[in-house]
Amino acid sequence: MSDTIFSINGTIVPETQAVVPVTDRGFLYGDGLFETLHAYGPKLFRADEHLARMAGGFKTLAFENAPPPKTLKRWMQDAVDAGGFREANVRMTVTRGSGARGPSVKGPFTPFVAITATEYHRRPARDYTHGVTAIVASFRRQESSVIASLKTTAYIEQIFARREADAAGVDEAILLNNSGLVCEGSASNITLVKDGGLVAPDPKLVGALPGTAQVVALELAEGLGIPVTRAGVGPWDLKECSEAFLSGSLRELTPLVKIGETAVGNGQPGPVTKKLIAAYRALIKRECGFTIF
Amino acid sequence: MSDTIFSINGTIVPETQAVVPVTDRGFLYGDGLFETLHAYGPKLFRADEHLARMAGGFKTLAFENAPPPKTLKRWMQDAVDAGGFREANVRMTVTRGSGARGPSVKGPFTPFVAITATEYHRRPARDYTHGVTAIVASFRRQESSVIASLKTTAYIEQIFARREADAAGVDEAILLNNSGLVCEGSASNITLVKDGGLVAPDPKLVGALPGTAQVVALELAEGLGIPVTRAGVGPWDLKECSEAFLSGSLRELTPLVKIGETAVGNGQPGPVTKKLIAAYRALIKRECGFTIF
Repeated sequence: MSDTIFSINGTIVPETQAVVPVTDRGFLYGDGLFETLHAYGPKLFRADEHLARMAGGFKTLAFENAPPPKTLKRWMQDAVDAGGFREANVRMTVTRGSGARGPSVKGPFTPFVAITATEYHRRPARDYTHGVTAIVASFRRQESSVIASLKTTAYIEQIFARREADAAGVDEAILLNNSGLVCEGSASNITLVKDGGLVAPDPKLVGALPGTAQVVALELAEGLGIPVTRAGVGPWDLKECSEAFLSGSLRELTPLVKIGETAVGNGQPGPVTKKLIAAYRALIKRECGFTIF
Repeated sequence: MSDTIFSINGTIVPETQAVVPVTDRGFLYGDGLFETLHAYGPKLFRADEHLARMAGGFKTLAFENAPPPKTLKRWMQDAVDAGGFREANVRMTVTRGSGARGPSVKGPFTPFVAITATEYHRRPARDYTHGVTAIVASFRRQESSVIASLKTTAYIEQIFARREADAAGVDEAILLNNSGLVCEGSASNITLVKDGGLVAPDPKLVGALPGTAQVVALELAEGLGIPVTRAGVGPWDLKECSEAFLSGSLRELTPLVKIGETAVGNGQPGPVTKKLIAAYRALIKRECGFTIF
């Protein structure tokens, strides 16, 4: 993988040294958090928002001695700079570290930080102009769990969901929560357009992770005078909305034109989604000096 | 940690080489399974049962190319033999391995196997003669999740539960499931005695992991003519039962004498539990030639 830069606890290392002890609690117990960021040229997009989400996780999980956000940001930037990629996918994983065995977290622990910066291969332009498709996963995401608001490394539910999407030949699987409300995709958030305004699942209500790219989209909408509502969204709303889009740090915004057998709206990317995609790109241009396409 | 033997993909290595690539999906996504076994002298107790549970997980998660149970058993045995401990705690972790990024599991992958054999330090005899205490966790375990029946490395819920137990100064936290039924402890299973018979939460009904030590206890009870029921168990049953015990491969069977502020039965280990502890030890003697205490 010569397309990847590896950083371990702030030091850039060759791939052979990019390893974690098997006694690390991230490996043993999923006792770790992660963030995926998009770098446009050398610029990390919305790094502070990702770092704030992770810092919230440190607090909830009582990760003591975690490096401060400023340090983590520098380490990510170092990896991005070392790669010199046109665009990069930056994954930062922070675990509690190695120490006592078992679920008990009586310290002391020193968190372990692994960062990879990988060349980002842009999706086909068609995904943005013609849209992507999804299914609704056959099982339900657990909304009331203590972990739902944490971006932990426990991604088995998302893996199951993605397997269903891959088997169906679609781009994404939408997970309903235990109450049957629309929650999130396996690696994206979903936002609907209804009556000309955006409707996004309320993350606290449905137990979804607040998506950084979705937050950007909602902010852009407000700037454009498009009404924004955070609410409970039912599967019926997927059939009644006029447009929908998926968001994620890597994918940015992609129109969602079909869910299962049902076309979203008229089955084409709609005007509100198109406007937001353009606004997102203008923002990347403004904040990162980077032109998409 | 000179009290530990490390084995990576079947080769015993020094601790410095007991590492996993940071690109491993177990580390990145909790895309891995584990088992904890108890070795008495050189003998692994009920290895086939643990391996069968893991093999079920391989199937559910579609881990292709995982080493066959016979091979995994030999690797564990090698680690135990190399340690020469009086008793050992054997942890085997098998992940999907390194490969494509993201939730998608389009292969190929080669599973990664990490085994540690660590000297087991026996609990104080008092835990068996006087019993241990527990609380009921403040949050609920997610029973209907696709992951509930898998022993994945995603242990954040158990970590949260154990933190509550540690804060309360008790041995274990009992988790109720989303429906409010008794599920399991953070690292043990719970079994009650009611009307002279055993009542154990039905793992399929409540979404608990079928505990290997609990299965042994139920088998021993049947051999002794003690009636055994697998059923839904409510928190009210914790107050109405005459005895209770916790089971686990490492702890074996420990009487549970207090849950929260409420004594179990008369607050002392009861006759049925004592009989089962003796039978469990006799079984260890029979199967492993090992005398406990």
